[in-house]
Amino acid sequence: MANPPMRFMSDNTATACPEMLAALAEANRGLAIAYGDDPWTERLDRALGEFFDKPVRAFALATGTAANALALATLTPPYGAIFAHREAHIACDECGAPAFYSGGAQLQLLEGKHAKLAPDTLAAALDAHPTSVHTVQPAAVSVSQASELGAAYRPDELAALCAVAHARGLKVHMDGARFANAVCFLGCHPAEVTWRAGVDVLSFGASKNGALAAEAVVFFDTDLVRDFELRRKRAGQLISKSRFIAAQLLAYVRDDLWRRNAERANGFARRIGQAAGARLIAPVEANEVFVQLGIDGKRTLRAAGFEFYDWGAEHAGIARLVSAWDQDETHVDALCAALTERCEP
Amino acid sequence: MANPPMRFMSDNTATACPEMLAALAEANRGLAIAYGDDPWTERLDRALGEFFDKPVRAFALATGTAANALALATLTPPYGAIFAHREAHIACDECGAPAFYSGGAQLQLLEGKHAKLAPDTLAAALDAHPTSVHTVQPAAVSVSQASELGAAYRPDELAALCAVAHARGLKVHMDGARFANAVCFLGCHPAEVTWRAGVDVLSFGASKNGALAAEAVVFFDTDLVRDFELRRKRAGQLISKSRFIAAQLLAYVRDDLWRRNAERANGFARRIGQAAGARLIAPVEANEVFVQLGIDGKRTLRAAGFEFYDWGAEHAGIARLVSAWDQDETHVDALCAALTERCEP
Amino acid sequence: MANPPMRFMSDNTATACPEMLAALAEANRGLAIAYGDDPWTERLDRALGEFFDKPVRAFALATGTAANALALATLTPPYGAIFAHREAHIACDECGAPAFYSGGAQLQLLEGKHAKLAPDTLAAALDAHPTSVHTVQPAAVSVSQASELGAAYRPDELAALCAVAHARGLKVHMDGARFANAVCFLGCHPAEVTWRAGVDVLSFGASKNGALAAEAVVFFDTDLVRDFELRRKRAGQLISKSRFIAAQLLAYVRDDLWRRNAERANGFARRIGQAAGARLIAPVEANEVFVQLGIDGKRTLRAAGFEFYDWGAEHAGIARLVSAWDQDETHVDALCAALTERCEP
Amino acid sequence: MANPPMRFMSDNTATACPEMLAALAEANRGLAIAYGDDPWTERLDRALGEFFDKPVRAFALATGTAANALALATLTPPYGAIFAHREAHIACDECGAPAFYSGGAQLQLLEGKHAKLAPDTLAAALDAHPTSVHTVQPAAVSVSQASELGAAYRPDELAALCAVAHARGLKVHMDGARFANAVCFLGCHPAEVTWRAGVDVLSFGASKNGALAAEAVVFFDTDLVRDFELRRKRAGQLISKSRFIAAQLLAYVRDDLWRRNAERANGFARRIGQAAGARLIAPVEANEVFVQLGIDGKRTLRAAGFEFYDWGAEHAGIARLVSAWDQDETHVDALCAALTERCEP
Repeated sequence: MANPPMRFMSDNTATACPEMLAALAEANRGLAIAYGDDPWTERLDRALGEFFDKPVRAFALATGTAANALALATLTPPYGAIFAHREAHIACDECGAPAFYSGGAQLQLLEGKHAKLAPDTLAAALDAHPTSVHTVQPAAVSVSQASELGAAYRPDELAALCAVAHARGLKVHMDGARFANAVCFLGCHPAEVTWRAGVDVLSFGASKNGALAAEAVVFFDTDLVRDFELRRKRAGQLISKSRFIAAQLLAYVRDDLWRRNAERANGFARRIGQAAGARLIAPVEANEVFVQLGIDGKRTLRAAGFEFYDWGAEHAGIARLVSAWDQDETHVDALCAALTERCEP
Repeated sequence: MANPPMRFMSDNTATACPEMLAALAEANRGLAIAYGDDPWTERLDRALGEFFDKPVRAFALATGTAANALALATLTPPYGAIFAHREAHIACDECGAPAFYSGGAQLQLLEGKHAKLAPDTLAAALDAHPTSVHTVQPAAVSVSQASELGAAYRPDELAALCAVAHARGLKVHMDGARFANAVCFLGCHPAEVTWRAGVDVLSFGASKNGALAAEAVVFFDTDLVRDFELRRKRAGQLISKSRFIAAQLLAYVRDDLWRRNAERANGFARRIGQAAGARLIAPVEANEVFVQLGIDGKRTLRAAGFEFYDWGAEHAGIARLVSAWDQDETHVDALCAALTERCEP
Repeated sequence: MANPPMRFMSDNTATACPEMLAALAEANRGLAIAYGDDPWTERLDRALGEFFDKPVRAFALATGTAANALALATLTPPYGAIFAHREAHIACDECGAPAFYSGGAQLQLLEGKHAKLAPDTLAAALDAHPTSVHTVQPAAVSVSQASELGAAYRPDELAALCAVAHARGLKVHMDGARFANAVCFLGCHPAEVTWRAGVDVLSFGASKNGALAAEAVVFFDTDLVRDFELRRKRAGQLISKSRFIAAQLLAYVRDDLWRRNAERANGFARRIGQAAGARLIAPVEANEVFVQLGIDGKRTLRAAGFEFYDWGAEHAGIARLVSAWDQDETHVDALCAALTERCEP
Repeated sequence: MANPPMRFMSDNTATACPEMLAALAEANRGLAIAYGDDPWTERLDRALGEFFDKPVRAFALATGTAANALALATLTPPYGAIFAHREAHIACDECGAPAFYSGGAQLQLLEGKHAKLAPDTLAAALDAHPTSVHTVQPAAVSVSQASELGAAYRPDELAALCAVAHARGLKVHMDGARFANAVCFLGCHPAEVTWRAGVDVLSFGASKNGALAAEAVVFFDTDLVRDFELRRKRAGQLISKSRFIAAQLLAYVRDDLWRRNAERANGFARRIGQAAGARLIAPVEANEVFVQLGIDGKRTLRAAGFEFYDWGAEHAGIARLVSAWDQDETHVDALCAALTERCEP
């Protein structure tokens, strides 16, 4: 077949947007002190502080796994327990990074609808977790915004969850690999689903939304920053020419680039979700669509040139369809048509 | 003072060369599978295999510290000992990364002229190291090419060192943050100072020589590759849009870009070294110049607008002067003039 | 109240049996080389080899947590996954020891009746566990014999479970803190529920069954022994006067001491279980009895002078009653009477 | 030869003294709550507080390596640096335990006469150690009392060293595997060479001085105790029948048992040292004697039935001769005679 594949595998397959390459070119001027003492990196705290409407400390990284694991390592002792959803990226897709970075912290995995944690579930898990010297010590909760099933926590949901965590002395981490997508869907200010709700540290992802490779760990609770900086260096996550990551992040929050990219991706997903109709297994609240197609349905779709990942075991029949900012609109049209055909009653 | 500083702090302060930005733009086309299954990353093994004149497995990373620590973690058990020079980057400048990545391996630090390890020194250290169950187990040797004092190992020096290591069952790692500079100085083929001499794994750096952020770990002994890949992922060092790192590395070895950049930086250093004359504390065999200036001499140079780091304690009086591919030639002229004045007999 | 409490908290509260103190006195003769090169330690392999009817390598340790964690660290890479029951001691009662010792291996916790793992459950979990570079790599299964609910795996159950594990390349570890109790209940040879069924490494506990502090890690697969020995030393688990641990283990398997002690404890538990009748939540197949008493029932029992731990959350109403070799028989009588009264229909 | 060897290899080869076995028998009465909530363990803080003339928190362990590594892990972050003598037990004889327990802390090894650290040496090392984000962070100093060459720190030497450490924010750990021997030699109160001099945490060894297996970690700075307790548990170093370790430690400090044993061992060493005369390479201030015998001298001594370890490389010709509380006096006589013959001018 001469046509290129129609790829809905991941927003990681996307290109970088032109503003990002322009930002790199703009940062590529003159000698700049390495390891973060350059003007671009130094602007990061202020730029993200304005974005979140609160003074923050922000650190540029190249991968989301590093952002999550480093943030969590700062929040938990090696004998700590991190509570998260059973489907969380940190549990399923990071090859044990949180345990590596923290020196052995144990994940305590919980159930929850649409891959979100409910306050009651967390409270019950903490109640059932004895805290003698024989057990790992509850230290942190990690939530994904949007969730692994593409659902968005509402501000009040998050606030209730954080309240449970804080009341027991746990810190709250948010994996925001698709933070922009969730915020766009919610139509809220970024503060409302982070520090105002009680989030202590955020992995703020840009790589899936137009950057080449840029993530920021944003500390709303800045006390732990020194520990974080040393962990980052020894993990080989302190980029020498830091300006090139920082410049991407600065571009990301400038002139609403994050929003334009996310809304474009969300719009595609919304259309795909509408086409999937009753076969959706979770509401479409970001740029991911999870559809029960059955084994045959998936096979047919792939035969038609669509590429995507299974969600869960292959035989479970669920397709994960992800759209990105640069998705070819004709591919989206084709996918919607194919789904409408299959998913109609 | 209106003039910008004349910066000789590090080759990390340099810009990326135009070919690198062009390579990013060229790689920014179309959707590409993430995490390394893209056409650029897939070309890496062959491109570096040709560069080294031997089939290799090569892995793209964003930092040199990650490259070193991941490579070493693959070569040593957690109870292993890594032999290196007392001044090695892995011992002094990586905040304990090798111990973190390996799960606790211990550095055994040795003396050596011009920050190079001599075969006899290594042999003596191994002789003196008992290998009962009570001691860390000798597992690897790590050498820096060029060394931390800007000196280059000759092929026969390396071969002798590797022979000692291999005879005792140790693997050899090379920190090649400035590999291109050393090879250009030596005028040899890259193979001669790597696998032909006995090096098992190389951290092949491009960031200091024109890239934005690109390092490759190159395995000449490919048996350990699976372990490496899993360690890389769990360390958050597997870049999702891997093509952007791979594209830099491909550009680096294409059309001798690595050589052009390195020779330019080396040429500057050679001139600076000649100006320093008898005050040099090590031969200039790469792009770093170490000069005994005394406290006053350093102060005078800084007052004249030159920026550089001390080498060792501030009061030791040694300046480290590093040139990069994009160094302003008028700054080099000025530095040479200033040094000639101070360093003349 | 003048009476001492009637303690059914744990077999760890028990005294050491006279044979153990005699063994220590017997070993306390003459100078003996430290760290295991003494005659007592040197007899261990042969004594346990005879016990298990197969050549083994056996290592003396002071705690069961160390035995489990060291054994598992030898079986799994730091990016490995260890499959175990949700109630397993390694998951709930060792403060994260397996992750610490292995350098970060992740527990994958499964459900199972009476705290035993079923082959189908393991197979399903392995089927559902993708093994890309993004996931922790299945490396080992750990089972407890007897289980955390006092149930014993039958030889054929174990063989089926081990077959699933081995077919996927996983090693099998057995936590035998109450191994003797299970074997006595089953009336089988120790080989039948270890290497003949496919167990690769056993934590063979004596501390809960008459020793002061003595556990052996027994390798039926002896290839991994060198790695184990080095891990043991660096963990501070190699006892200098090793003879005193070895002597306990030698005494334990001599003249059926292990059996006499375990049968005594089992006999008490059997009687308690009969008294509990329909309130049992698991069959009594070792020296532990789990009884649904309700909150009030537990309170009444405690008021009557009985000491025991809750099983699960306090409000779940389940009492864990453990007997030991040296249990005061009148206390058992009293407990049976109290339970009969409460548990009668 | 029918005669048993005359063993001067280590005080670890010794038997346990009768008071220790009596203490075990005495502790072997009645059911006692496990994991440290027993009357013996509960008396430990007070007994050691009286011994050191200051309230302390003390924890019973089975090995000195565990005591050292756990204490250090509590004092240093994973990116910390621990300063110690090049010959320190933690550097040479514990298979990397401090790095394992701390999660990767790096040893910074210093020279020093008679294996003792001098305040000036430490100060110079700290001056030369930059503390940017690129370097391991100085966190602790560890000294051995007596030193690895059998020399004892005087109270004022220790106070000066601790003052340097504390002025830079480092904590001080003391490896007291032969603490009793040093104190007996010095004739001082235990407080004078611990907390009064500035030591924060002590590994207080009894195993080499009459116990079966008993070490205490004694915190003079009690703030870090909770962290220590959790690290101890997850390391499998919390003994279930803790009473049997605690009982040894209680016996050790009761009725000056520690002193009687140590003085006996010291007295033998003093005699051996006098016989060695000018061949001593370090003063005899504990129960170890280091003698330059040459290769031939060592061979002759071994041929005469004496067993001992080389110190350093075999060809360096140095013998380490260690005496214990239970040394056969006729063996000491014979050794003195043999040495006198060889060492006379």
